[in-house]
Amino acid sequence: MTNETAEYSLSRPCRKVPQWDIETDIAIIGFGASGASAAIEAASAGAKVTLFEATSGNGGTSALSGGEIYLGGNGGTPIQNAAGFSDDTEALYQYLLMAGGPNADAAKVRLYADNSLKHYEWLLAQGVEYKNSFIPQRIVEPDTDDCLIWSGSEEAWPFSEQAKPCPRGHTPKFMGMGAGRYLMDKLAARVTALGVDVRYDSRAVALITDESSRVIGIVIRNAGKDSYVRARKGVALCAGGFVMNREMVKKNAPWMLQSNHPIGTVDDGSGITMGQSVGGAAINMSEGFVTLPWYPPESLIKGIFINERGQRYINEDCYHGRTAHHGMQQRSTRLFSLQDSETYGEPLFGQFAKIGIAGTGDTWEEVEKELELPAGSLTTTVELYNRFAAEGSDLLFHKAKKWLKPLNKPPFVALDCRIDVCFYPTFTLGGLDTLPTGEVLNADRKPIAGLYAAGRTACGLPRWGEGYSSGMSLADATFFGRQLGSRVVSVA
Amino acid sequence: MTNETAEYSLSRPCRKVPQWDIETDIAIIGFGASGASAAIEAASAGAKVTLFEATSGNGGTSALSGGEIYLGGNGGTPIQNAAGFSDDTEALYQYLLMAGGPNADAAKVRLYADNSLKHYEWLLAQGVEYKNSFIPQRIVEPDTDDCLIWSGSEEAWPFSEQAKPCPRGHTPKFMGMGAGRYLMDKLAARVTALGVDVRYDSRAVALITDESSRVIGIVIRNAGKDSYVRARKGVALCAGGFVMNREMVKKNAPWMLQSNHPIGTVDDGSGITMGQSVGGAAINMSEGFVTLPWYPPESLIKGIFINERGQRYINEDCYHGRTAHHGMQQRSTRLFSLQDSETYGEPLFGQFAKIGIAGTGDTWEEVEKELELPAGSLTTTVELYNRFAAEGSDLLFHKAKKWLKPLNKPPFVALDCRIDVCFYPTFTLGGLDTLPTGEVLNADRKPIAGLYAAGRTACGLPRWGEGYSSGMSLADATFFGRQLGSRVVSVA
Repeated sequence: MTNETAEYSLSRPCRKVPQWDIETDIAIIGFGASGASAAIEAASAGAKVTLFEATSGNGGTSALSGGEIYLGGNGGTPIQNAAGFSDDTEALYQYLLMAGGPNADAAKVRLYADNSLKHYEWLLAQGVEYKNSFIPQRIVEPDTDDCLIWSGSEEAWPFSEQAKPCPRGHTPKFMGMGAGRYLMDKLAARVTALGVDVRYDSRAVALITDESSRVIGIVIRNAGKDSYVRARKGVALCAGGFVMNREMVKKNAPWMLQSNHPIGTVDDGSGITMGQSVGGAAINMSEGFVTLPWYPPESLIKGIFINERGQRYINEDCYHGRTAHHGMQQRSTRLFSLQDSETYGEPLFGQFAKIGIAGTGDTWEEVEKELELPAGSLTTTVELYNRFAAEGSDLLFHKAKKWLKPLNKPPFVALDCRIDVCFYPTFTLGGLDTLPTGEVLNADRKPIAGLYAAGRTACGLPRWGEGYSSGMSLADATFFGRQLGSRVVSVA
Repeated sequence: MTNETAEYSLSRPCRKVPQWDIETDIAIIGFGASGASAAIEAASAGAKVTLFEATSGNGGTSALSGGEIYLGGNGGTPIQNAAGFSDDTEALYQYLLMAGGPNADAAKVRLYADNSLKHYEWLLAQGVEYKNSFIPQRIVEPDTDDCLIWSGSEEAWPFSEQAKPCPRGHTPKFMGMGAGRYLMDKLAARVTALGVDVRYDSRAVALITDESSRVIGIVIRNAGKDSYVRARKGVALCAGGFVMNREMVKKNAPWMLQSNHPIGTVDDGSGITMGQSVGGAAINMSEGFVTLPWYPPESLIKGIFINERGQRYINEDCYHGRTAHHGMQQRSTRLFSLQDSETYGEPLFGQFAKIGIAGTGDTWEEVEKELELPAGSLTTTVELYNRFAAEGSDLLFHKAKKWLKPLNKPPFVALDCRIDVCFYPTFTLGGLDTLPTGEVLNADRKPIAGLYAAGRTACGLPRWGEGYSSGMSLADATFFGRQLGSRVVSVA
């Protein structure tokens, strides 16, 4: 062991290979959605694919998800059409560009927007089924086998002003929540059917480079023994993000440590670190997704969020991840959702998410007092909001008219959305800079020969906590996993 | 040229050396404060030092600064003592730890706090002079030759609660502003006197590594010709940050692009990128300093800042960089400083910083209207603040009592602090992870043999825009430049 770690590590490539234990065309690291999609495309094209997974089963963090994929454009999927929506490619492009934030990758967004409908068809071809149904109410994910939902901030300011709104969250036909497992079962079955050589309990510990710095293989550790894998066409890092590596989070995105609910399986940053060890550039490393499933019922959206200074901070009708992300920037551990007797409904995920009731009252003064907020801090905010709501125009935060209603019907309730108490799941959005083909880039945006990445090891479509929408990460992982799989095969 | 760039680049180390054109013990890249301090210590210890500077003169971005250095602890400097302050080492330690933010480097803070008084003496020994004087008023930097000022948020919440306040900004005895040039003249004179071989117009283009990945030299480009420099003991990257590389800022700290006033000379990120090319880990890359010199006169501190939603967002008595940093997080291009006839005074740097008057009025309603803010948004905020001020306790933002005064004496003024119009200078605070000795670390925090970094190429004491205080960056650059210089020499 001592000799081994002295020779190489996640952060230091291996340059001395005693022998090749395994030879393959493509070594894929990680059996989540991106690794599976890459494997399917590469194997379909006739390549010999070896897929290494650190754990004893497939699915990765993708299997922990709701399985939603953000799809549309090109006139719309049949499900969008049946629900009465004709989705425009440019609207999808604009929305994703905006959702990607100030450092959005226009090339990736363009490719995805143009091919999203084809990607839907590809998913069907892999055996993923979708029910032809639409849930118009605002929810987090279906607890039925229904498909289409509003899964982002499409109808909310400022997105609604720049891109024609359309629901695009497509959830597979799976009864109940957590369709990510279903999605991965389908993809994994295809991987198996295509004869991909899958090796479980096999952890990648270092890339192998030749004298010209080309990546030619990878060292895999299984039961304490290292194997040297030659990958003739390339190594694909599909090993997830880094949210489970708390030290790495601290160094890059310390704001995320406010949440003690990282969502991940392995996600130890090893894919990113190995990429960096051969000169790969990691970008956007401070960005992350965070949410709080505070609705449904959607009537809660008519309430308002305040921080512990009594200040409102967001248009409450945007995506739950956006409200939570803004909440986490408030420098306020206590956050409250204020409701009146007409808007209040017990949060569906209240118990699960630990959203309790922080205070009640027959007047807002009483609530303010019970929350121990400075006199006047909450009440002036509610007063101002109620006036805007009555006038039908939220001049401060631009919440859409349909969600505006004066909060003036007692009794009043303040929901407890404390950051240190409630369930604020979070994962990272920074990673290796890649071309749409999956080629890993160095700081000069030059490809590193033989190295590819996709999924949360790469920095893809989703790269801005403020703009994240459900289904963006799986859309990115599956679609750009596929691009990677095709590309590796095509390189001579 | 084509062959050359194919062989190596900032992001790809050079591994084939036709011949050694220059041989030295230590190659230092960059002649700012950190490079100069490293050179002085290494040369004093008898090493052969070669200093490469990309421009035609010395000073780097350090020379653009006010020349303040954050010094204290250990009972206080003679200047602190003369002003009546006995600075405590633990207070300095606590303050710097807090100022460093959630990812502060405790080892560096510890070493600096323990040795800050000795560092003051070292500065004197280099010929830097300080006048024994203290300016108790809150200013940005002296426009005289005075020395000691409050250069951070020491007396402001929450810092004041955790570390006993003491003024620690030491400005050299130089008449007028911009003492950074004076400081660099003194250090540069020492560098010359010690016989350091200084090469101007010499840009580093790639590190050179041997088979074991040890850094053994650097490629230097001068007038289009590359020289291969062998550095027997090590290469020190003291090449500044990356604020002038707007693409790199976009990839790592896009929020900083709100300011169009990057402060730098070279600062193209080349030091960081070269470090990464051999496996160096860059951390905290999203952090940056930003400010707006909105005071003096200090009476303005009695006013309040609001965003374009009429919301207050900071205790205005903290350091100007902290008020500006919080302002930039407001998602509000328009920011205002509200004043009444008793607090208003023309901002000293108003013309320079483009701080104009956005609105005036005999009532706050008039001001609100003139600013075209929604009715009630500004006035309720002022009302609430005035009540807190009258009661002597700022329950929302904890501004210290001495700065509290109801803003109720007309006429009223709103100063225009627009982010896209005013002078918000900014520079980066992320960089290579290093030990206090300057050794560059990889992602596993293992040193990379032969490679060192200091100043803004490294991630040092200042690494959190919210906590930055004037003098922290030069303190870090000079002190840890020295550590680096000593360390390189001592390694066998």
